[in-house]
Amino acid sequence: MPRKDAVQKVTGEALYIDDYSYEGMLYAAAVRSPHPRIRIRSLSDSKAKKISGFVTLVTTRDIPGKNAWPLVTEDYPFLPGKESRFAGETLALTVAETPEAAARAAQAVEVDFTELPHVTDPFIALGKNSVKLHGPDNVFSRYVIQRGEAALVDSDVMVEGTFSTSYQVHGYLETQGAIAFPEPGGSMTVYGSMQCPFYVVDAVAQALGIGHHQVRIVQRTIGGAFGGKEDVPALVAAHAALAARKTGRPVKLIYSRREDFLSMSRRHPSWTRISYGAKEDGSLTACRVRYVLDAGAYSTLSPIVLWRGAVHAAGPYRIPNVFIEAYAVATNKAPCGAFRGFGQPQVCFANESLIDELALKLGMDPLEFRIKNALREGDRTATGQVLRGSCGLEEALVRVREASGWSRRKRQARRSSGKIRKGIGVSANFYGVGLGARGRILDRAGAQVQVLKDGTVLVSVGNTEMGQGSLTVLAQICAEALNAPYEAVRITEVDTSRVPDSGPTVASRTTLMSGNAILNACEPLKERLWTAAKELLVRQGSDIQSEMQAFSGRFRIGTYSVGFAEAAKECWQKREKMAEHGWYAAAPTSFDARDGQGDAYSTYAWSANVAETEVDMETGEVRVQKVTSAHDLGRVINPMTAEGQVEGGVLQGIGYALNENLVYRDGILLNPNFTDYHLPSTAEAPEFKTILLEHGYGAGPYAAKGFGETPLIGVAPAVANAVCDATGVRMPQLPMIPETVWSELKKNAEDK
Amino acid sequence: MPRKDAVQKVTGEALYIDDYSYEGMLYAAAVRSPHPRIRIRSLSDSKAKKISGFVTLVTTRDIPGKNAWPLVTEDYPFLPGKESRFAGETLALTVAETPEAAARAAQAVEVDFTELPHVTDPFIALGKNSVKLHGPDNVFSRYVIQRGEAALVDSDVMVEGTFSTSYQVHGYLETQGAIAFPEPGGSMTVYGSMQCPFYVVDAVAQALGIGHHQVRIVQRTIGGAFGGKEDVPALVAAHAALAARKTGRPVKLIYSRREDFLSMSRRHPSWTRISYGAKEDGSLTACRVRYVLDAGAYSTLSPIVLWRGAVHAAGPYRIPNVFIEAYAVATNKAPCGAFRGFGQPQVCFANESLIDELALKLGMDPLEFRIKNALREGDRTATGQVLRGSCGLEEALVRVREASGWSRRKRQARRSSGKIRKGIGVSANFYGVGLGARGRILDRAGAQVQVLKDGTVLVSVGNTEMGQGSLTVLAQICAEALNAPYEAVRITEVDTSRVPDSGPTVASRTTLMSGNAILNACEPLKERLWTAAKELLVRQGSDIQSEMQAFSGRFRIGTYSVGFAEAAKECWQKREKMAEHGWYAAAPTSFDARDGQGDAYSTYAWSANVAETEVDMETGEVRVQKVTSAHDLGRVINPMTAEGQVEGGVLQGIGYALNENLVYRDGILLNPNFTDYHLPSTAEAPEFKTILLEHGYGAGPYAAKGFGETPLIGVAPAVANAVCDATGVRMPQLPMIPETVWSELKKNAEDK
Repeated sequence: MPRKDAVQKVTGEALYIDDYSYEGMLYAAAVRSPHPRIRIRSLSDSKAKKISGFVTLVTTRDIPGKNAWPLVTEDYPFLPGKESRFAGETLALTVAETPEAAARAAQAVEVDFTELPHVTDPFIALGKNSVKLHGPDNVFSRYVIQRGEAALVDSDVMVEGTFSTSYQVHGYLETQGAIAFPEPGGSMTVYGSMQCPFYVVDAVAQALGIGHHQVRIVQRTIGGAFGGKEDVPALVAAHAALAARKTGRPVKLIYSRREDFLSMSRRHPSWTRISYGAKEDGSLTACRVRYVLDAGAYSTLSPIVLWRGAVHAAGPYRIPNVFIEAYAVATNKAPCGAFRGFGQPQVCFANESLIDELALKLGMDPLEFRIKNALREGDRTATGQVLRGSCGLEEALVRVREASGWSRRKRQARRSSGKIRKGIGVSANFYGVGLGARGRILDRAGAQVQVLKDGTVLVSVGNTEMGQGSLTVLAQICAEALNAPYEAVRITEVDTSRVPDSGPTVASRTTLMSGNAILNACEPLKERLWTAAKELLVRQGSDIQSEMQAFSGRFRIGTYSVGFAEAAKECWQKREKMAEHGWYAAAPTSFDARDGQGDAYSTYAWSANVAETEVDMETGEVRVQKVTSAHDLGRVINPMTAEGQVEGGVLQGIGYALNENLVYRDGILLNPNFTDYHLPSTAEAPEFKTILLEHGYGAGPYAAKGFGETPLIGVAPAVANAVCDATGVRMPQLPMIPETVWSELKKNAEDK
Repeated sequence: MPRKDAVQKVTGEALYIDDYSYEGMLYAAAVRSPHPRIRIRSLSDSKAKKISGFVTLVTTRDIPGKNAWPLVTEDYPFLPGKESRFAGETLALTVAETPEAAARAAQAVEVDFTELPHVTDPFIALGKNSVKLHGPDNVFSRYVIQRGEAALVDSDVMVEGTFSTSYQVHGYLETQGAIAFPEPGGSMTVYGSMQCPFYVVDAVAQALGIGHHQVRIVQRTIGGAFGGKEDVPALVAAHAALAARKTGRPVKLIYSRREDFLSMSRRHPSWTRISYGAKEDGSLTACRVRYVLDAGAYSTLSPIVLWRGAVHAAGPYRIPNVFIEAYAVATNKAPCGAFRGFGQPQVCFANESLIDELALKLGMDPLEFRIKNALREGDRTATGQVLRGSCGLEEALVRVREASGWSRRKRQARRSSGKIRKGIGVSANFYGVGLGARGRILDRAGAQVQVLKDGTVLVSVGNTEMGQGSLTVLAQICAEALNAPYEAVRITEVDTSRVPDSGPTVASRTTLMSGNAILNACEPLKERLWTAAKELLVRQGSDIQSEMQAFSGRFRIGTYSVGFAEAAKECWQKREKMAEHGWYAAAPTSFDARDGQGDAYSTYAWSANVAETEVDMETGEVRVQKVTSAHDLGRVINPMTAEGQVEGGVLQGIGYALNENLVYRDGILLNPNFTDYHLPSTAEAPEFKTILLEHGYGAGPYAAKGFGETPLIGVAPAVANAVCDATGVRMPQLPMIPETVWSELKKNAEDK
C-alpha cells in the first residue's frame, strides 16, 4: 500500500508548524545563557523595550504553575530562577509583534550574572572533588544487572576493551516550534512539531497550573524526529504557553537551527568498558560491562535511555554470567536524551566490536560465532528473561551470510591491500519493543475508530506519525480488521483531547500499541458490520445459514455480495453505535532494581548487519559500499515502509559511524550548524540489501512487532568490524572520522 | 451550577468565527441576485479583475462534486447554474486578498440575465395558472392527520377562524460565517458558526465530491442561533470550501448583516383556517385545521417544519375527531426554515386564539376550559398516540392560574376602560421533544467521555452549545454520573471528527440525546472508578464487604474516604481503559403517511402561559407587563439555565407577537437591518414569573426532557388573548404592530 502522506509531503502540500499563523499572533524568542554555568542576578528588558514591536519579557515570575518540567524527575525548571546549567539554556522569553523584533529583543535583554565553576567531563564529574550538579556524586541514575557469577568464571578465553562514542543530533527537517493559543476559561491549546503530545500536556498543565482537561495539544506534520522531538517539545510548548498566558494572545515560538543545535537533546556520549569470556568451543560464558553516559545538565530522559542500554548491553547472546553496571552522569552541557536506538547504539558498538575480537581470538568466523551464541527461543537474556518465541536472530544471521556472499567477500577482503583496502564486517543486535518494565505504567495506548455513514472510516490514535509510516500501517490494520477499503480509512491528526494518554511515540511501539488499540476498537464494530452485511445478503436472497466470507472490502455468500459501504450504511439505518474507543496495555513486564532481573520487555525485534567498506589507508577515509541487513519484525504490515525504515536507519547509522559529531570546547558548542556538522546524504548512501523476516509475535497486531529503531543500532559496529577487517586495526571510538581512523592506523603501525 | 461559558462570554474572551484568521487566508464575498427570479446568461469578472487583490471568481464550473445541497430534498443548488429563484441568492463568489476587495469585486461582477415571471404569494402559487417553481402545484410537502370522523360531529358549539402570521428572523449576535481550511490530500476542515455541524459535513463532502472522512467541521463559539444556524451554515461552509478548494488557501466568508437578512432562513409566514367543536359541557369534540406555510424558493427544512406544525396543530387537548391538512408552498423569496418552535408558534397562535373564542362562546373561563380538555396520561393525541406519562399540562395550567392570580386579575381587567386597557390571557401548548417519527433516522447521538490521569474529565458530544446552556447541563450530567466534581468536567468544542453523526442540534433534543449518550459512555467508566475507589478504601483499612457511598465527588466507607481524582489516578495506575464512546438512539416512534396516525414523538414538554397586557386604544400599542409561565420539562438539570430559556423564549415570543416583521414588496425585502426590523430589548421585557415542573420522563437522562423551544410557542396567543380580553377584539394576525391593532380596533368599532 502506498504511504498515506507520500504525495502531500512530496508536493509540499503538507503544512508544518511554521506554516500556521493566527489573527493577533505574537512571536517569542529565547534569551539564552552564554556560559556553561552561571548564577543569574537579574534580567533587564530596559533596552529591549526600545525595540519597536517588543511586547513583554516572560520570566519565572510569569509561571502561574510549578516551575519544574515534569519528566522522570523534576530537576529541569521551565526557566531557571537562580542558576543556569548549560550554555544555550533558555533564561527568559521575549515576546514581540514580529519574529525579528522578538529575536532582536532577546539579544537586547541584559542578563546580570556571575560565572560559576562548571564540569563538562563525566569522569571528572564522578570525582570526589568535582562541582556538584546533582546529588552527592552527579549520578542521575544507575543500574546493576547481575546474572550468575559476577566474575568471568569458566572462561578459556577472555577479551576486554574500552569503547567510546560521541554525540549525534537528529537532523530533523524543521526545527523545534510551537504555537500556543489561549482558549477561554484559562484553557490552552498548543500546536507543535512533536513526537509525544501527552508529555506536552503534562508540561503545559504544570507550567500553567491548570488541569489536563484544559490543555489540548495538537501535533502538526513533522519532518522527522528520531527522538529529538520526544521530550524537548514539551519545554518549547510550555514556553509558548507561558507567553500566551501572559499576553492573552496566540504566541509562536520557532527555534533557529543554531538554537536547536545549542539547546536540543542529542545522543549521549558514552564510555563502555566491556569484557567477554568464552570456552574454547566458542560458547560465551560471561560478560562484564561498565557503561557510562554523559547526560548533560538535567536528568530528562537519561534514566530511561540508560536502562535500555543496560538491559541490552551484553548483546543478543546466551551468556550464563553477566554483570552490567550503568551510570548517567551530570555535566554542564545541553541535556542528552532520546535518539533512535535510545542508549543501545553506543553499547552495541562496544559489545559487537569486542565480540569480533573474541571470535578472532578463538579463531572462529565472527558470523558463525554469533550464530552459535545467538539467543533462541527458550534461552534467557541478561535479565534472566526466558524468550517465549518470536526470535529471528539466528535466521537473520544465516540470511545475511547468504545474501551478502559472506565467505566469498571475506576472502576477497583478505586479499585487499594497497591504498584502498576492502573489508567486511558483521554485527547482531536485538531491541526490546515498547517501553518495557521501566516504563510499564506508560505502556498503554488508546484509539478510536468511527465508521461514518457514507462508509468511510475515521481513526484517531495517540501515537504520532513522524515519518516512520504509522499513518499507513495503522490505516492498513484498521482496514483489514473491518474489511474496509484502505482508501476509505483516514487517520486524524493527533490531538490529545481525542484519545486517552497513549504514552510517548518512542521505542518502536506504535504499530504494536496503537495497532492493538485499533483492533480492540474494531471488535464490536466488526460484529455490527458483519450482522448488517449478513442481513443485506439474506435480503438479497442468500441463505441465512450459509457462512459469509469477508475480504477485499466485500461480504459474500455464494454469488451474493455487498460492499463495505453498504454494510456501514445499513448499520446507520439501524442507528447502531458506530464509534468505539479501543485500548491496549502491554503484556506484563518486570525488573528487580536490586539485581536487574526480570522480563524486561514483552518481545524483541532482531537484526543482523553485514557492512562492506573501503578504507583509504593514506587519509583514513572510510566508505561504506553495501549494507546487507536482515530484520525480524514479526508480521510485516507494509514492506515498503519497513524497507524505508531500514534504509533510513542504515544511512543514519553510517552517519553515526563515520561523520556526525558535536564538538564542545569547555562547554561551548563549536559546530551548531549543518555546515560543520556533517550529516550523510544520498551521496554517502551504500547499496542496500534488505531482508525482512516474520517471526510473528502472538500478542502483536496481526503478529507484528515494532521496528523503527533496530535498523540503526548495529550499523556502526558492522562498519567498525569491516574497517578492522580491511586494516587489521580495531577502532575504539565513534565517529570514525578520517583523522581518528588515520591516527589509529598510524598508532597501530608505530606499535608494530 | 454556574454556566460553564458565562465568564468568557461576558468578558469578551470567547472567540467567534470572525476572530480567527490563518496564514495566507483569502476572503470570499457573494455575488447576489437582484431579482426574485432570473435566467442567468453569463457571469463576467472582467471588471472585477481590475480590483487590486482580486484572486478569482468561483462559479458552478468550480464545483467538483454534485451541485445540490443535500437536505430533505436536493432542489437547492450550491450555486444556481441557469435560474436563480430569489433576490439575494448567491450566484457566484469572489475571492480576494482582503474582505473589502472581495466585496468590491462582488459588486463588479457583471451578471447577464433576463428577469423571469415570479410568484411571491403562496395562494397565488397554489393556483392553476401560477408560475411553477416546484412540481405541478408548487407544493413542497403536504401532510394529512385524520383521527375519528372528519366532520365536526357531535358538536353543540362550533367556532371557526382564520389566522395569519408573518416572518420572524433569528436575530443572532454574529452573522453567518465560515473559514474553510484546505488540508493535504484533498481533505477540508471548515470552522464556522453553526448549530448542526453534521449537516455541514454532508454539504461540504457533496460539494467537493469527497468522503466524509475527509471533511472535518468545527463549531466556533456561537452567539445564539434559534434555528437560523441549522441548515444555512452548510451552504456558507460549502461556498467557503469551494473557494478554498479552487485557490488552495484558507478562505473566510462572513456575511454582512444586510446579506444575512436577504438570504438567511426565517420563520415561515402562515395561514391557518381552523375550527373547533365542543359539547355544551365544554368537552372538545372535533378540530379541523388547514395550515399553509409560505416556504420560499427552495424546500430546505420546510417538510419537517410543516410536519411538526401539523402534528401539534390541534393543540394539547383531548379531541376525538381531528382532521388536519398542511401544505408548504414554493414562492420566489428566500427559503424559510427552522426557528425556535419549528412550525408550532404559527399554528399555536391560531388554535390558542380560537380556543379562547370557543370558551367565550361556551361561557366558560378560558383557563378552566383548557384544564378540562388538557391532555393527560392515558389520553390520545391527534396522531392517536397514547400518552404514557410525563404529562404536566394540567399542573402547569393550575399553577399559572394560582401564580398569576388569574381570577382576581381577570376581574380587574374586566373593569379597565379608557385609553389604556388592561387584559389578561392564557395559552397552553405542548412540544414533542426531539426529531420524532419524521426524523427518526437522525434521532441518535454519540458522546465520548475520557477520565484523564489527573482526575479531570473531558467530554465530546455532537450537539452544539448555541447559548442554550448545553455545555453546562451536559457537564452536570457527566459529573453526576461519574461522581466527579463539576469543575473537573470540560466539554470540548464540537468537531465532527470526534463523535459520530449525532443529528442536528435542534428540536430541544440535546439534553435528552447527548445526555443519554454521555450516561451510556459513563457506565463502564463508572464501574472501573468504583472498583478502584473500593480498592483504595480497602487499602486504607475499610472492610471489603461494606457498601461504598459515592457522592459530592468522594467515595466513602464509614470514616474512610477517597476523592474522585484519587480513584481516577488509581485506574490509570492499573492501566485501565478510561475513555468510552456512548450512544443513544431515541425511543421508537411512528407515523403513517396515509392518515397521520402514530407515536409522533417519544415524549412531550408542556407549557402554560398567562400574559397581562396594556393596550393603548388610541395608538394600538400593546405592552406586555407580566408573563407567568409554567413548564413541565421533566427533571430540571439546571434551574438557572432553564429560567434563562424561559425568559429568553418569552421575550422572543413577545417580539413575535408584537414587533418583528419582514416586509417584502414584490419579492424584494424592504427592511434588511435592525433599524427597520424591530427586535424587543430589555426595555420591552415584562415581569417574568417562571414555574418549572418536573414530570419526569423515564427514558431521559435523570428523567429530563428537552426544553429549548417550548417557552416561545405559547406567548403570542396568550398576548393576543390578553389583548382581546382588554379590548374585546380578536386579533387575527401577527405581529400585532400598533397599526394592525389600531386597524382591527377601528374595524371592530365600525362593525358595531
